[in-house]
Amino acid sequence: MSTENNRQIKLGAFFMIPGHHVAAWRHPEAEAHSVLDFKFYKKLAQTAERGKFDMVFLADGYAVSKRFPAALEQTVSVRPEPLTLLSALSAVTEHIGLAATVSTTYNEPFHVARKFASLDHLSGGRAAWNVVTSSHDEEALNFNQQVHLLHEKRYDRAEEFLNVVTGLWDSWEDDAFLFDKEAAKFADGSKAHTLNHEGKWFNVRGPLNVARPVQGHPVIVQAGASEPGKELAARTAEVIFTAWQTLEEAQAFYADVKGRLAKYGRSPDSLKIMPGVFPIIGRTVEEAEAKKRQLEELIPVEAGVSLLSALISFDLSGYDVDGPLPELPQLAQVNGGKSRFTLLKDLAEREGLTIRKLYQRIAGARGHREILGTPAQIADQLEEWFVSGAADGFNIMPPYLPGGLDDFVEFVVPELQRRGLFRTEYEGTTLRDRLGLSRPIHPASLQPANIAALS
Amino acid sequence: MSTENNRQIKLGAFFMIPGHHVAAWRHPEAEAHSVLDFKFYKKLAQTAERGKFDMVFLADGYAVSKRFPAALEQTVSVRPEPLTLLSALSAVTEHIGLAATVSTTYNEPFHVARKFASLDHLSGGRAAWNVVTSSHDEEALNFNQQVHLLHEKRYDRAEEFLNVVTGLWDSWEDDAFLFDKEAAKFADGSKAHTLNHEGKWFNVRGPLNVARPVQGHPVIVQAGASEPGKELAARTAEVIFTAWQTLEEAQAFYADVKGRLAKYGRSPDSLKIMPGVFPIIGRTVEEAEAKKRQLEELIPVEAGVSLLSALISFDLSGYDVDGPLPELPQLAQVNGGKSRFTLLKDLAEREGLTIRKLYQRIAGARGHREILGTPAQIADQLEEWFVSGAADGFNIMPPYLPGGLDDFVEFVVPELQRRGLFRTEYEGTTLRDRLGLSRPIHPASLQPANIAALS
Repeated sequence: MSTENNRQIKLGAFFMIPGHHVAAWRHPEAEAHSVLDFKFYKKLAQTAERGKFDMVFLADGYAVSKRFPAALEQTVSVRPEPLTLLSALSAVTEHIGLAATVSTTYNEPFHVARKFASLDHLSGGRAAWNVVTSSHDEEALNFNQQVHLLHEKRYDRAEEFLNVVTGLWDSWEDDAFLFDKEAAKFADGSKAHTLNHEGKWFNVRGPLNVARPVQGHPVIVQAGASEPGKELAARTAEVIFTAWQTLEEAQAFYADVKGRLAKYGRSPDSLKIMPGVFPIIGRTVEEAEAKKRQLEELIPVEAGVSLLSALISFDLSGYDVDGPLPELPQLAQVNGGKSRFTLLKDLAEREGLTIRKLYQRIAGARGHREILGTPAQIADQLEEWFVSGAADGFNIMPPYLPGGLDDFVEFVVPELQRRGLFRTEYEGTTLRDRLGLSRPIHPASLQPANIAALS
Repeated sequence: MSTENNRQIKLGAFFMIPGHHVAAWRHPEAEAHSVLDFKFYKKLAQTAERGKFDMVFLADGYAVSKRFPAALEQTVSVRPEPLTLLSALSAVTEHIGLAATVSTTYNEPFHVARKFASLDHLSGGRAAWNVVTSSHDEEALNFNQQVHLLHEKRYDRAEEFLNVVTGLWDSWEDDAFLFDKEAAKFADGSKAHTLNHEGKWFNVRGPLNVARPVQGHPVIVQAGASEPGKELAARTAEVIFTAWQTLEEAQAFYADVKGRLAKYGRSPDSLKIMPGVFPIIGRTVEEAEAKKRQLEELIPVEAGVSLLSALISFDLSGYDVDGPLPELPQLAQVNGGKSRFTLLKDLAEREGLTIRKLYQRIAGARGHREILGTPAQIADQLEEWFVSGAADGFNIMPPYLPGGLDDFVEFVVPELQRRGLFRTEYEGTTLRDRLGLSRPIHPASLQPANIAALS
C-alpha cells in the first residue's frame, strides 16, 4: 500500500500512567511507584520526542471514585494535574506538542485561556487544549454541586466557554508589543482589544494579561462523538480524538464530521481525526497474544467491573460477572458519555460477551481500538485505517509504560517511516506546523471595521 | 555584628519581569522583549539557585488595567501565569523553592489543592502557595462579577478556602500507597479520607486525586497586614511577605504577629517574616544613586500616576503631579489593599511628597523598603533588620533583570555568607528543610479516633 501525495500519519502519545490497561500497574515491567515522579514522565516525553510523535496527550478527571471501594484499592487514582505536568515537560523537550485535557464544566474561561496561552509561549508554540465536559456526579461533589450538568447544558456551556477562550487569546494583536524603550512604548494600546463578552454562562471583559499565543490559538482538540459533540467539533475542533472499534464505524464518523466542515467555511484538512489505538506489540503474534493474556489475568474483578460501570454510566456491581449485561437504560436517559455507552452496549450484544469478557475487552483500550501483532502487522493496521478514509492519525495508548511506548518507538515508528507514512524529522517549529494546521489570523486583520478600539 | 546560634537569613527572589521598577523595561540592560520567553526565566531561576536563594517568588493578577490607557502603553501588562511558569522552572532547577501567588477569590479549592500538590510532587517538595485575595474591580469583570468582594468577605472566603485546600492535601495518608503488585493492592483504602466539607462558601467532598504532597503541605505564604490578614497569618501562614519602610514599623509588626502564634499552639520559629526589599547596588554609593536616578527619569508620568493610583485604590489622574496628594477617603471606605493605602498616605504626609515624588519613591519598591549602596552597605541594612527583631529574611525585588539579580548573587550573597548570615550549601531536600519549617503531621496520626474511614 502507498499513499497519494505527502499525506502522513499524525501521532499522539497518550500517557496514562503506568499504562492504559487497568492492570498495567501490576505488570512486572510497570513502574507503579512512579505515578507522581517527574523523572519518569521526562523519560517518557523524551522517548516520544525521539519517536517524532506530534504530541503528548493527557486525559483528566476531577474525582477519586468512591463507588467501588475495592476498585479504589486496585487501581491508580492519583496522578499529576495535566497542565502542571505538561508545563514541566515543556522545559525538557524541544519539539513535541503538549496536549492537556481541561474541562469546561468546572473552570473559568479566563484562567483556562491564560494557562494555555502561557504554556504556548513558554513552549515556543506547542500547546493544545483537549476541550471536554465533565460528566460524573462524583466530580460535581468537589465543586459545590450535588449532580453534574445535563448533557445538553454541558455542551451549551462548553461552546460558550470555548468562544470566550478564543476571544481572550485574540486580546492582543500579533504586533501589539513594541518594546520601544526610547519612545516609552511597550505596547500599542490600539492593538489591545476588550472582549466584553456577555453571555448565558459567562461575563468576561478582557483583555487577557498574556500576549497572543505563538500559535495564534493553541490547537483545539475534542473527543465528543455525540450529535452536539460532532457539531461543536465541526465548527471549532482541529483534532478529534475518537473511539471506534471497526473500520466501518470509523469511516462513517470520518465522512460525517469532515462533511460538516464546509458549512463552516472549513477545508477537510483543517481537522485531523485521530482515533485512539491500543497496540500490543510482540516479536511474533504469539508473543503479543501472550502479553495480552498476561494483562487480562492481572485484572482484579472489582476493578474490571467498576471500570466498565464508569464507562457505561451504570453500576454493574450487583450482577454476575459471568452472566450477560443486564437490561440497560435507553440512550436518552444516559447522562454520561453517550457515544461510549452505545459502543460498549453494541459490542456486548454483537459478540454475546459476559460482563467479565466485556471488561477484559475494554480494560486496556477502554472502548478504543485494540491492535495486536508484530511491528509490521501493527503498521499494517494503522496504514489500513489511514489510507481508507478512517483516520488522519492515531492517539497511541501504550498498554504499560515505559515498555509499551519504547516498543512502539523502537519498532513501529521505523516501520511507518520506511513506508513513507511518518516523518523522519520534525517540520517547522510549532505543533500547528507538525499537524499541518494553519495559524488563525487575528480578527482585526480580517475585519478592521468591526474591532472596537481600546477605550 | 553577629547573630546568636545558627539563625540565618532566608531569601526569596521575587521575579517581576523585566524588573520591579515600573520603568525597568526601559533600562538599557533590561530584556524587555523576554517577558514571555522561557529561556530568560530559566536563566534567572538558575542564577537564584546559584545564589542559594530559598525560593523564587511570583506575584499575580487577573486583569489588564484599562483605567489609564497611556499607562497601558507604557508598562508591562502581560506575563506568564505563575503556576505554569514555576512548573516549567521546576524541571530545570534542583533545589530552589517555587512560590506562586494564587487568589482565593476567583478560584476553586479543588483545583488549587491539586495544582500545588502536583507541583510539590514533580519538584520533589519545593512548592509554596502565596495565598491572596483579589481586590480590583477590573479582575471581578473577568469572572462574571461587576464589583469585587468586600474586604471582610474576601478574608472570610480566603480562610475557608485555605481550610479546604489543606484538608484536601490530607486526603491520603503518607503511607496510603502500597504498589503491591502481588496482592493487587495499589492503595490501602482505609488511608484515603473524604473531606466532606460543607461550608459557607464551598461544598467539597474529596478525596483529592493526588497523593499527599512531599512536604505534607506546600509552604503557606501570606502577605496581608490588615487586622484580619494578621490573624489569618498567625493561624495559618508559614511565611509572611510584608511591606515596611522603617525599622520601627517592621519591628512592631514582627512582634505583633509572632506574639499571636502562641494562642494557636505555634512556636515563633514556625512563621518566617520576610519583608520585601528593593536593592540598588553599586560599586560605590554614587554609582548606586546614579542607577536610581536613571530609573526615576525613565518613568513616564502616566505610568507613575496609574501605579500610585492602583496601590492606593484611588484615581489620581485628574490632579497636578507636582502638587500634594488630594484628600483621600477614610481607611474604612478603602476596599483594596488597606495596609498599603495607609503606608503610602503616611509616607506622603511625613515627608511632604508631591504626587510625582511619591510615585518616584514607590515606582521601584512599590511600598516595600528600598536599600541602596555598595554590597557591604546592602548587607549591613539586611543584617540590621535581621538581628534586631524586624525580619527572618527578605524577599529580594531586583530593580531590573537580569542585572539586578546577577549583582545581588555575585556581590551581596558572598558578603552575607562571609558574615555567617547565609547558607553556603542547601540544607535538606525540601523547601521546608531550607526554611526550617517542620512537615505537617497527618491528622490521622494525631487523632486516630476522629478519622472517618473510607466508605
